[in-house]
Amino acid sequence: MTRRVEVVPVEGLPEIGAGDSLGALIVEAVSVTGEGIRSEDVLVVSQKVVSKAEGRFVNLADVEPGERARDLAARLGKDPRLVELILRESVDVVRAERDVLIVEGRSGWISANAGIDASNVPGADRVTLLPAEPDASARRLRAEIRDATGALPGVVIADSFGRPWRLGQTDVAIGCAGIAPLDDWRGRSDRDGGELAATVIAVADELAAAADLARGKDEGVPVAMVRGVARFVTSDDGPGAAALRRARDEDLFR
Amino acid sequence: MTRRVEVVPVEGLPEIGAGDSLGALIVEAVSVTGEGIRSEDVLVVSQKVVSKAEGRFVNLADVEPGERARDLAARLGKDPRLVELILRESVDVVRAERDVLIVEGRSGWISANAGIDASNVPGADRVTLLPAEPDASARRLRAEIRDATGALPGVVIADSFGRPWRLGQTDVAIGCAGIAPLDDWRGRSDRDGGELAATVIAVADELAAAADLARGKDEGVPVAMVRGVARFVTSDDGPGAAALRRARDEDLFR
Repeated sequence: MTRRVEVVPVEGLPEIGAGDSLGALIVEAVSVTGEGIRSEDVLVVSQKVVSKAEGRFVNLADVEPGERARDLAARLGKDPRLVELILRESVDVVRAERDVLIVEGRSGWISANAGIDASNVPGADRVTLLPAEPDASARRLRAEIRDATGALPGVVIADSFGRPWRLGQTDVAIGCAGIAPLDDWRGRSDRDGGELAATVIAVADELAAAADLARGKDEGVPVAMVRGVARFVTSDDGPGAAALRRARDEDLFR
Repeated sequence: MTRRVEVVPVEGLPEIGAGDSLGALIVEAVSVTGEGIRSEDVLVVSQKVVSKAEGRFVNLADVEPGERARDLAARLGKDPRLVELILRESVDVVRAERDVLIVEGRSGWISANAGIDASNVPGADRVTLLPAEPDASARRLRAEIRDATGALPGVVIADSFGRPWRLGQTDVAIGCAGIAPLDDWRGRSDRDGGELAATVIAVADELAAAADLARGKDEGVPVAMVRGVARFVTSDDGPGAAALRRARDEDLFR
């Protein structure tokens, strides 16, 4: 079966602050579009608003860089307070060369700067950290949406990550609930009865990427609703985006 | 401005053979859906059908593995004829460990097995190679569509690639024409007037990923039309997906 997929940007969310019920605010913003949230939809939510709702703000002025952070910052040409924060939010440094600091963050994602950044954060020197447990955030968001609507859509929390070998960033899933993050075709047959070799699709990441097409980075449109992907939505919360993490000892690029 | 994005799977393409005008066949298949191709649309076309139209088939029975391929195949547990072909299609081996062979292919993309695979290729032991110059393929396809319709849509040629650190594959662009492959927000301001740091979006890859959501791997639906992304479509063919390639000496994971 094939199907049309539609990505609906959800506009009109207010500036999110610590303690806000993001789920309820999303439900309200979706209702303004004249659409309703259905259990077969997927809501893709930018990390930034999740972090804001969870109060994951840090003021760089409050950060005292240690010696390691100062050394690394000098070498990379970065703000030592930011480097200190990145190191605190990380369990491993994967690369520290030129002006790039790539780390394994506390929640297991490998990214530049542990996902810490200052864009779209009001206030000078204020940055957001990634949600502490993005899969738990996705589950919570899903429950809030269920409480407000009775519907149980899939939820993806997305962030823009760079990649080795390829320029530019794409949005990927750092958390999810209620979707199958991987669609495993191995062992199934192709049209000609031949085996489909090693085809496991990272659906959660493709949902994040599709959602990103529907919004500009400057627009305050941190949520998009994806329709036509019911086959990936599950009634239980499922394994979350944790299922997308390649184990360290199976990774050739650590 | 925000916009809805729609992905329309294009069904009903026949099995593609060497010498077919893929562009004309796509135009015909789209017309069956009751839609017309417009200059503001993007057609995302799976590598496999492009390779088939270009006659990029190889029968493994015709491949004589050399010593290096035999050694590598024994070490990796792979078919030595396939390894020979991968080496012929590559300019550099990036990793050869466990059962994984990651190479820089002749067209500059880093992927497992140089993008060579056997799924959805009729005939035992028959495989397809990537198009020799995917950006040129995209330009040709675009010209064929223009000749058949008068419209000049964007064209993306997509393939499923694995990634370091993350499990599963996502579709990415290996060729494109008539779209801006990168959307550069650096130096532009966010909502609050703050600078958007280092945000360059790999639009071509996100288009490929979005298209992949609209089709199963077993269905013979190798084309999807993406609507609502006019802001990325350009009248000239543009730099192609080559613009997405990170230069070797700027890459920390080679």
